[in-house]
Amino acid sequence: MAATDYEIDHELSDDAENVHNAWDNALDPVLTVEPGEVVRFECRDALDGQLTPDSDVDDLANASFDPVHPLTGPVEIEGAEPGDALVVELLEFEHKGWGFTGFMPGEMGLGLLPEEFEDAGLHMWELGEDSAEFVDGIEIPLAMFPGTIGNAPAETGEHDTLPPRDVGGNMDVKQMTAGSTVYLPVEVDGALFSTGDCHAAQGDGEVCVTGIEAPMFVTARFGLEKDADIAQPRLETTGPFTASGEDEPMYGTTGISDDLMEATKLAIRHMIDHLSAERGLSRAEAYILCSVAVDLKISEVVDAPNWTVTAFVPESVFPE
Amino acid sequence: MAATDYEIDHELSDDAENVHNAWDNALDPVLTVEPGEVVRFECRDALDGQLTPDSDVDDLANASFDPVHPLTGPVEIEGAEPGDALVVELLEFEHKGWGFTGFMPGEMGLGLLPEEFEDAGLHMWELGEDSAEFVDGIEIPLAMFPGTIGNAPAETGEHDTLPPRDVGGNMDVKQMTAGSTVYLPVEVDGALFSTGDCHAAQGDGEVCVTGIEAPMFVTARFGLEKDADIAQPRLETTGPFTASGEDEPMYGTTGISDDLMEATKLAIRHMIDHLSAERGLSRAEAYILCSVAVDLKISEVVDAPNWTVTAFVPESVFPE
Repeated sequence: MAATDYEIDHELSDDAENVHNAWDNALDPVLTVEPGEVVRFECRDALDGQLTPDSDVDDLANASFDPVHPLTGPVEIEGAEPGDALVVELLEFEHKGWGFTGFMPGEMGLGLLPEEFEDAGLHMWELGEDSAEFVDGIEIPLAMFPGTIGNAPAETGEHDTLPPRDVGGNMDVKQMTAGSTVYLPVEVDGALFSTGDCHAAQGDGEVCVTGIEAPMFVTARFGLEKDADIAQPRLETTGPFTASGEDEPMYGTTGISDDLMEATKLAIRHMIDHLSAERGLSRAEAYILCSVAVDLKISEVVDAPNWTVTAFVPESVFPE
Repeated sequence: MAATDYEIDHELSDDAENVHNAWDNALDPVLTVEPGEVVRFECRDALDGQLTPDSDVDDLANASFDPVHPLTGPVEIEGAEPGDALVVELLEFEHKGWGFTGFMPGEMGLGLLPEEFEDAGLHMWELGEDSAEFVDGIEIPLAMFPGTIGNAPAETGEHDTLPPRDVGGNMDVKQMTAGSTVYLPVEVDGALFSTGDCHAAQGDGEVCVTGIEAPMFVTARFGLEKDADIAQPRLETTGPFTASGEDEPMYGTTGISDDLMEATKLAIRHMIDHLSAERGLSRAEAYILCSVAVDLKISEVVDAPNWTVTAFVPESVFPE
């Protein structure tokens, strides 16, 4: 996870003066960098410190969503102009030893299946160097990335950080790991880059609404591709594309429906059924496992009127 | 791709008497097998022989969709009853040396992006043992699987083979490769299993409406899981989950939208932009490459109101 061929030019702590909770191109930059420079960001967790390693599910159920997401920045990149792509080389991630994955009471309507989970659920993680233990000996390999990474949008005013946008933001693309390069559309002079909401691991879809949410340091080198004219973010990555980094046994469940979102819900429901019946997890535990370790592929979107989504769980996360 | 620990109990040719073009539980079985037996199916290509290795794009544009899909079967499995899962171990696939990938004129409304492709497009493939060459030295690794694999539905009458259903069918799950086990819901006595529409390779989504369509032999062992009570198909597989079977460099494009299908379209549009600009492909070639080699992941479906889909192309398919 560690790149060694860089020197840090700037450090940004997660002190209040470096943190903001909405996208807004009127924010003053907290730092200005030249292309080629490396910044080490300290990033708060998505719930902005409302949970600690000692928290329980009631703390989550009573947490406020108002501070979501605290982002470190914005950083101004000299020479960045609308139409350029900001090139962000993700060099290294360092967690602080703990994280959480949880879902809120169903009435809040968050997550993929709020109607199936009336109550909140929570798992507190102790993060090791390469993995973290769930229940029943299940071991989740870490693959750290920033859930939220983006530039300020051209549109004036404050914008909620929850939805991703053309400029990036809360994309939750779990392949934006160390060694990846992310290309973000620039919409305002200086780009005004921010990041945060880091995940120590995540399944595709982040289905229960959280990955392994963890305060983290993110080290990145900035560059510019002039007049790149990309409409939405892109990336170069080497994955991981599987839990082990190579082909390995997976159990898959399909979701087949005439609506792609419904097909996604069905695939995850069937996976929760499988994990409950065959692996002895409670449905809440299964939902959390889906959100941190299950991948979602769009298998077909052309055989009208029905589409197929497939969810895959790696068998390797279970004890032998 | 070859399993060696089996003996073939039955062979079904692709002669007319063994082929049907609609799902219909009133069809007489062409073969009855006991659980544990192995059947080798000869399967026609999806367009039922209308194209040959010498065909050109006009042949595709003038082809009839009426015979889609010719399926070999149905096979009755003794003892299969509604509520069971038919267990299909996919043992081996053997292609016949050629295949095609094409898309129809946009006015027909087929494929993910019919509005962007007015005319038909076609690539004829010569299939090697492990790979097939596209244009400009691009080499696609083969990963053979049945695009369509399923049981007869409980509902009486003839049913179009194009959409997948609860009993399976045209799911296009590209991980149903040799060595995989597929679990299909049984809705009628005897299950009445059929397969066909084989692909020598496919990207997730089969976005241009075809994979590498190829006539093929499919060898499978049948079993039953009584009272499995699964709502839709499931599978066990070891992939491949990447082109090389291990983590490798990929280029990714995101699609961000408040509609999951539109996000999918955007991710593929951006990938076509990339392949055209950076790899020198025509847009039609890029569309075909997406359909045979680009994977689609649902990155997030919980950050309302916008969802993220990411398309990945493996760099390894390009010449060095």
